[in-house]
Amino acid sequence: MESQSYDRDIEIVEVKPIEGKDLVFIEGFPDIGLVGAIAASYLIDKLQLEEVGYIDADLLPPIISVRGERIKELIRIYKGGRIVAIVSDIPLPAAIVKPLGSRLVSWAKSKNAELFLSLSGLPEPNRLNIDKPKIFVLGSTPELTEKLVQVDSVSKFKEGFIAGIKGIILREGARMNVNTAIVLAQSHYNYPDPGAAAEVVTYLSKLLKIDIDVGPLLESAEELKLKLRDLMRRTDQMMQGIQKSKELELPPVYL
Amino acid sequence: MESQSYDRDIEIVEVKPIEGKDLVFIEGFPDIGLVGAIAASYLIDKLQLEEVGYIDADLLPPIISVRGERIKELIRIYKGGRIVAIVSDIPLPAAIVKPLGSRLVSWAKSKNAELFLSLSGLPEPNRLNIDKPKIFVLGSTPELTEKLVQVDSVSKFKEGFIAGIKGIILREGARMNVNTAIVLAQSHYNYPDPGAAAEVVTYLSKLLKIDIDVGPLLESAEELKLKLRDLMRRTDQMMQGIQKSKELELPPVYL
Amino acid sequence: MESQSYDRDIEIVEVKPIEGKDLVFIEGFPDIGLVGAIAASYLIDKLQLEEVGYIDADLLPPIISVRGERIKELIRIYKGGRIVAIVSDIPLPAAIVKPLGSRLVSWAKSKNAELFLSLSGLPEPNRLNIDKPKIFVLGSTPELTEKLVQVDSVSKFKEGFIAGIKGIILREGARMNVNTAIVLAQSHYNYPDPGAAAEVVTYLSKLLKIDIDVGPLLESAEELKLKLRDLMRRTDQMMQGIQKSKELELPPVYL
Amino acid sequence: MESQSYDRDIEIVEVKPIEGKDLVFIEGFPDIGLVGAIAASYLIDKLQLEEVGYIDADLLPPIISVRGERIKELIRIYKGGRIVAIVSDIPLPAAIVKPLGSRLVSWAKSKNAELFLSLSGLPEPNRLNIDKPKIFVLGSTPELTEKLVQVDSVSKFKEGFIAGIKGIILREGARMNVNTAIVLAQSHYNYPDPGAAAEVVTYLSKLLKIDIDVGPLLESAEELKLKLRDLMRRTDQMMQGIQKSKELELPPVYL
Amino acid sequence: MESQSYDRDIEIVEVKPIEGKDLVFIEGFPDIGLVGAIAASYLIDKLQLEEVGYIDADLLPPIISVRGERIKELIRIYKGGRIVAIVSDIPLPAAIVKPLGSRLVSWAKSKNAELFLSLSGLPEPNRLNIDKPKIFVLGSTPELTEKLVQVDSVSKFKEGFIAGIKGIILREGARMNVNTAIVLAQSHYNYPDPGAAAEVVTYLSKLLKIDIDVGPLLESAEELKLKLRDLMRRTDQMMQGIQKSKELELPPVYL
Repeated sequence: MESQSYDRDIEIVEVKPIEGKDLVFIEGFPDIGLVGAIAASYLIDKLQLEEVGYIDADLLPPIISVRGERIKELIRIYKGGRIVAIVSDIPLPAAIVKPLGSRLVSWAKSKNAELFLSLSGLPEPNRLNIDKPKIFVLGSTPELTEKLVQVDSVSKFKEGFIAGIKGIILREGARMNVNTAIVLAQSHYNYPDPGAAAEVVTYLSKLLKIDIDVGPLLESAEELKLKLRDLMRRTDQMMQGIQKSKELELPPVYL
Repeated sequence: MESQSYDRDIEIVEVKPIEGKDLVFIEGFPDIGLVGAIAASYLIDKLQLEEVGYIDADLLPPIISVRGERIKELIRIYKGGRIVAIVSDIPLPAAIVKPLGSRLVSWAKSKNAELFLSLSGLPEPNRLNIDKPKIFVLGSTPELTEKLVQVDSVSKFKEGFIAGIKGIILREGARMNVNTAIVLAQSHYNYPDPGAAAEVVTYLSKLLKIDIDVGPLLESAEELKLKLRDLMRRTDQMMQGIQKSKELELPPVYL
Repeated sequence: MESQSYDRDIEIVEVKPIEGKDLVFIEGFPDIGLVGAIAASYLIDKLQLEEVGYIDADLLPPIISVRGERIKELIRIYKGGRIVAIVSDIPLPAAIVKPLGSRLVSWAKSKNAELFLSLSGLPEPNRLNIDKPKIFVLGSTPELTEKLVQVDSVSKFKEGFIAGIKGIILREGARMNVNTAIVLAQSHYNYPDPGAAAEVVTYLSKLLKIDIDVGPLLESAEELKLKLRDLMRRTDQMMQGIQKSKELELPPVYL
Repeated sequence: MESQSYDRDIEIVEVKPIEGKDLVFIEGFPDIGLVGAIAASYLIDKLQLEEVGYIDADLLPPIISVRGERIKELIRIYKGGRIVAIVSDIPLPAAIVKPLGSRLVSWAKSKNAELFLSLSGLPEPNRLNIDKPKIFVLGSTPELTEKLVQVDSVSKFKEGFIAGIKGIILREGARMNVNTAIVLAQSHYNYPDPGAAAEVVTYLSKLLKIDIDVGPLLESAEELKLKLRDLMRRTDQMMQGIQKSKELELPPVYL
Repeated sequence: MESQSYDRDIEIVEVKPIEGKDLVFIEGFPDIGLVGAIAASYLIDKLQLEEVGYIDADLLPPIISVRGERIKELIRIYKGGRIVAIVSDIPLPAAIVKPLGSRLVSWAKSKNAELFLSLSGLPEPNRLNIDKPKIFVLGSTPELTEKLVQVDSVSKFKEGFIAGIKGIILREGARMNVNTAIVLAQSHYNYPDPGAAAEVVTYLSKLLKIDIDVGPLLESAEELKLKLRDLMRRTDQMMQGIQKSKELELPPVYL
């Protein structure tokens, strides 16, 4: 239904035909803590995936990206082995979220994808004091969720809302009968979180049985931690005495 | 008329066909005090209704709901016996109110529905001092209203405005010759009101001759009351002296 | 012209067919001092006009009105003898003003209406000190204006602007060759003005040769006057010293 | 091109057919100092032009004008001899500027117009100290400009921007091969400027070889001048000391 | 794709047919430091290019430009030898950027253009202390970039974003197989920068083997520099002590 009203504005361009058996699609569109964006870019780099296509849409802003002296599309598709990774240099404009999510899943279905993974962060206020962020997973079917938790004994995402394209991909997977899933790591809300991304990559390496060293991500994480601790300390002194009375605690209600 | 301009954007999906004689539709879209939402969810839970469908629309935001480790549509349809309950995890976007209200009534008509009930709250400033909120009812025809008040001797909703989808459902019922009605309980305006929901459920149990224990709702209500009383006391102290001159009393005018 | 672009969104529904010779249409859409709304509602009540139809439009808000335990359309049509009265429970949304005005006049034309009257208020800053508000009239043709002033020797509306649907109805009458006219009474700008409405009703009773007692309207007016005088006195004390330098008087310019 | 997307919404209605040889169209849509509006209205009055048509558009606001006890269209067309004057009671809504400008020029072309004149003001900060505002002219072709400056030795408008419908009319004239021109007088920016209008009318009387007394305009101008001088004096005292540091002078740049 | 939805609103009008071999298109739409606008205008002036066409669009504002007593289109096309230069008197409205960029490249392609150059500025905070701004280039293909850097040994633009029509032209060149490139000079962000424009012109003179004296541009640059130095000095005194705590340094993250 959405496809009819919006699809003419979205184009998935395969510069090299994207083919293969048991394809695993991985998207890292930027959101909480840039966890998905960092993890997907890291995968592309370490697995040396090849740029094979891009996505264009009227609703994307008039900006191009230049990387390594080359003009780049804003939303790019990479491939290597059975992995197809999708990354974006900009957060998705709100109006594109529903039609693009729907298009991506039907595109993956047309390729007989084995799995479509969304990578993301789960905002955790206490993140600074957590050494090893926890991973939560949710699949488009209970069976898929069960399989996903058995890898590395991660947790299920049990209750809540998932906003944005990652939610739409999950739902469209359920509707179109495509195995879609989300992998979330506890994350900073306001800062890029390479430590959370490292946990996501580690999980993926086990799930997909590929070998990746997350050392560089962990180093970035350590560096960030020191800077943030320092920042917090200074900020705390400034903020003391401000915003003390916003609490309005209500009892849990039957909903 | 509205159907033609809007309907292509709204889809009522019956995952399991919704069939049966004398069907009673009950909607609990969130509004004043979340009374309808709480009451409908409680019914679904206590009567163990089965999830049988959902409503999708371009105008709904790109969010999914996760409950009990499962992906859920935002607006869901449940069924059990002759009861069909519709609930939403989010307040309806304004632009969807008129077309959805119209669609729901014509959909119910196509099922030869016996009755379409909207559940809601009636804002009552003095709610905190009311132990047992009163129930008001209004049907799409005077005959239906008469029938509804005879159950448990509740009051008629006599004068005023009903905004939102609950008003539209009433009016479309009158226009399309479908028995639609609204059941309102005196309610908090700013807080979820399980006590008001309990009265609505009690009324429904008599109207529909089903047996439901509202104990848990009443407990939540009691807990809320204590917290609110405490909150009020503290707020009152803060607010004293503020906003004293907004009154501009005019004599009643012939309108 | 407007009809083509907008008309599909406006529906004039005659629940009982509106027929008859020499029909006089009277609209009391809410505007300055609610004069038209009060006068038209008073007529409907005192002449015991029967509800015979309504107007619906996509652009109307999703609200229903409940009066006397009954669901009401927002814009209703009443009839009795040769009088057809149109009233609205809400001020008209801006976008509906031009198409609705045009539709109403062509609808009246299709009924061979003798006259289409708009009732309204003329804001008068000194209203509080005026015992008997003056009536001003203007017809879609000079001939009609002449006829209207001969009734009860009221004044002509000579110079100025008439905004909103009442202006559109006048102009469309002139364009479509339908006798349309406006009847205005000096009125409060910010308060409902039953006294102004009383003068309008009195004028109509002479124009249409019908007998109506405006006693209740005059009583409401008296009551309002006392309250406003009191309000003014208190407000004046507060406002003294504020807003003293907004005057920027320019000489009259040749326009 | 614009015509196709907008024209259906604009109607030029000739209540009396507008015909004749060597027609000169003059528009006085309100802008800077209302110079064009004052000058065109003055012409209509003194030359006793006859109201022969009007312009309507969906984009015009729902307002009518009443003048001399008669309902008036907002944008009116007057004619007398070979002069066709167009005036508006309201500033043109922005969205109508381009399509209306284009329509007016092609309409004038269809009448084999000899000339289409826009009357306007040129904002002059030092206006208060200028006794006789200068006139500037610009034609749609250099040849026309030359002819226009030879009348009464006025100045050419040499460099700058002309915004609004007067600019569009000039450009469309150049594109469609219709002689269009603008006549500007130095003018107040914030106040109606009858003195500037007087100069425009004087210029027109020479250009079109018609006889018009501008005495009443000059009297209004004198009166305005005294009031403004007084206003300035009082304002200056208030403003002293405020807004002193907005200057940021840059050298002229090669553009 | 974009062409279909937008193109009807953009018209490239060739008043004189634009023909020839090995055409080089140069656009100087206004952006950072007006570098492209100044450089392109300077070329047009010094090479005495002839005005041969213009671009019109519904989305352009209703403004005309007057230069040398003549009405000018806002976006003009000039030609001389194999050079086709495009300049605009106003910054492009955002909504026109994507469709116009796409149209320009396909138009150039239809002319078998050898090259399409965008001229622009690269914001450089330290610009005031740079005597000779550096030139950066980027072509739509790596081969083109290589050729461009060999002229006068300028630098490659390696990493970053290019927003606006200059980015779109680069990308559309890559997509449509047209040689497009951008030439950027280090520039002031907030002030027109004739010195940066001089470097761009110098580069072009070598690339295109044409002879142009940039003396006047350099003089303007020198004059600007003195004024800005003075301005900075005065501003610095004012700003001391303000805005000291906006830094929030984060470690580089793997993206």
